[in-house]
Amino acid sequence: MPAETPVSPLPPLPPVARPGDPVSALDTPTLVLELDAFERNVARLQAACTAAGVALRPHAKAHKCPDIALAQVAAGAVGVCCQKVSEAWPFIAAGVRDIHISNQVTGANKAAMLAELALHAELSACVDHPAQIEALAQALQARGARLNVLVEINVGQDRCGVTGADAALALVELIQAQPLMRFGGLQAYHGKVQHMRTRAERAAVAGGAARIAAEVKAALEARGVVVERITGGGTGSVEFDLAGGIYTEIQAGSYALMDADYQRNDWDDAWRFEQALFCASRVTSIGDGTRSVLDAGLKSLAVDTGLPTVAAVGLAYVAANDEHGILRSEGGRLPGLDELVMLAPGHVDPTMNLHDEIVAIRAGRVEAIWPISARGLSR
Amino acid sequence: MPAETPVSPLPPLPPVARPGDPVSALDTPTLVLELDAFERNVARLQAACTAAGVALRPHAKAHKCPDIALAQVAAGAVGVCCQKVSEAWPFIAAGVRDIHISNQVTGANKAAMLAELALHAELSACVDHPAQIEALAQALQARGARLNVLVEINVGQDRCGVTGADAALALVELIQAQPLMRFGGLQAYHGKVQHMRTRAERAAVAGGAARIAAEVKAALEARGVVVERITGGGTGSVEFDLAGGIYTEIQAGSYALMDADYQRNDWDDAWRFEQALFCASRVTSIGDGTRSVLDAGLKSLAVDTGLPTVAAVGLAYVAANDEHGILRSEGGRLPGLDELVMLAPGHVDPTMNLHDEIVAIRAGRVEAIWPISARGLSR
Repeated sequence: MPAETPVSPLPPLPPVARPGDPVSALDTPTLVLELDAFERNVARLQAACTAAGVALRPHAKAHKCPDIALAQVAAGAVGVCCQKVSEAWPFIAAGVRDIHISNQVTGANKAAMLAELALHAELSACVDHPAQIEALAQALQARGARLNVLVEINVGQDRCGVTGADAALALVELIQAQPLMRFGGLQAYHGKVQHMRTRAERAAVAGGAARIAAEVKAALEARGVVVERITGGGTGSVEFDLAGGIYTEIQAGSYALMDADYQRNDWDDAWRFEQALFCASRVTSIGDGTRSVLDAGLKSLAVDTGLPTVAAVGLAYVAANDEHGILRSEGGRLPGLDELVMLAPGHVDPTMNLHDEIVAIRAGRVEAIWPISARGLSR
Repeated sequence: MPAETPVSPLPPLPPVARPGDPVSALDTPTLVLELDAFERNVARLQAACTAAGVALRPHAKAHKCPDIALAQVAAGAVGVCCQKVSEAWPFIAAGVRDIHISNQVTGANKAAMLAELALHAELSACVDHPAQIEALAQALQARGARLNVLVEINVGQDRCGVTGADAALALVELIQAQPLMRFGGLQAYHGKVQHMRTRAERAAVAGGAARIAAEVKAALEARGVVVERITGGGTGSVEFDLAGGIYTEIQAGSYALMDADYQRNDWDDAWRFEQALFCASRVTSIGDGTRSVLDAGLKSLAVDTGLPTVAAVGLAYVAANDEHGILRSEGGRLPGLDELVMLAPGHVDPTMNLHDEIVAIRAGRVEAIWPISARGLSR
């Protein structure tokens, strides 16, 4: 209620941060990217892939941020993966030229969207059923677009993908019969292996996935099909994926940012990436002094793999409500009203998908604010 | 890769739906609002509040959608609640004139944002510490704005709020000493009671909260303080909140849309609201025939209170990945490729916060597409 005459029009909300601001001035809650750690992560996996002679195609579903994708491409990535067709849009708009849709593209709506985007960038997508090939072929013909089509094989996750070489070959032949399609190889991704806690488990399951991919590849080649690309792998399995010699392309995404769940894996030191992603939060209430209540809850942090961890020692984030997080002491000093608290999110991908922007910082200052342009693009 | 000359510029993504479309044409994943059920929910709680002589101020954090808020106000609501200051912005812009920030407003950034918004609408907010009153007073003075300030009392949730009448009175006196503030009453909200499964538990805990609020009110009145408003209550407790006679205003939010978690409560028939919110999803893969893989996962559905339920009988959504949901048969027919599947989300508030729009349908046709304009506004 105005004391005087109403002021109009309603001004826009102030920005969460401005370049040059100290971190202490951040409005909250907001995501923060520690650029030094991020750049080391990007460079480290790129160097490992390059040394192994394997292409790195980072998964953009992890970050949904064109500025991050462009940094990965500048470091040597061949392009990015997206998990949905619509998700590719802002990356193409930002100038990423080579995108793999690492998922089945099903139905006329998605096929039409993909055919349109395929006029603007080098695209590939997966199939695991003849009906997908048919719908894609019709859409490509309608737009005069071309597409690289990969067959996804089930390497043990039991989600998508065909089982066995005969089923794969049947799809390859349908793809090869389509004038606007090119058989682009195999996708052999195993999501469950990524978060298995011990290296021994991950080595065993990733090894099993690679063996299945090798068998299908050999069977296709025995029938004269060239399998130029085998794409898969992830942050949790990449040391084994590179060593196995079957993948030509690695799809890891989380490595660039990391999260609390991945940090709980048992890692060889050479493969433990640094936590570069944080959610900056502030204390809005101190209750009766036994807790500090943070302004970052379920709408700022995905909790499907567990609650966030606190960057400061001796503090635990013990409960998430929609817009509140409860912080308790485990020996540390509880922060006071309006004090800044940095949290490592439990799960990077759905957390990035909650925010419209990420504040890129270096040495305690804001360097840039990057839009998370693919946020919400799940079609 | 274009077959011919590249087409430019990149066209926008197609809309998820168009008014008049049949539901069968929806692109997915997308949220869907069944307007008939929604309108019955809105009318039913409004009638109950009106009959009890209690104001209804629906919580907009549940939906973040100005079109929904305007429908609630048109049905008789006195305004809405928001949980964060920035969240109020799109509701004010859409013409909602009376908004309560049902949360502590802490720190100079938030105080300045609130003071600016208070020039454009009737606003109230909560405090539970003297430092909040000080920061708000400075910001109000800087903008020449006025504010109704409520004291939040802890009625058993142990989140925010002061404990006891003396602590409340100390804050009331600080508020009354500020020329641009008006003491607006008490907030007495208990979040945990809402999802207690049995009516008996909810009756007991809501009754306890009301008794604490009544005691603090009586103590303040004994010292000459008028307590014109006691705001609180929710979808799970509203039958007890209205019967208790202490609340002057009900903050329920979920009732208008509902979710799978609330549906698991034990309800008296008169207080069971209808499921009006769905996530429309489609099958992208059928694997080996033992499952159907949906295109709605963690980025389309919040799972903090459990997985979504399936509208069709005999089917269970058994696992959510970032962009995949796994559907298995529990006696029902597994849907085929590209088939539409309607899901009731586990938790309404964070699910609405994942989507930029909701498709309002009636009798199987699209009536409107409503922007979820406050999505992501958590500052």
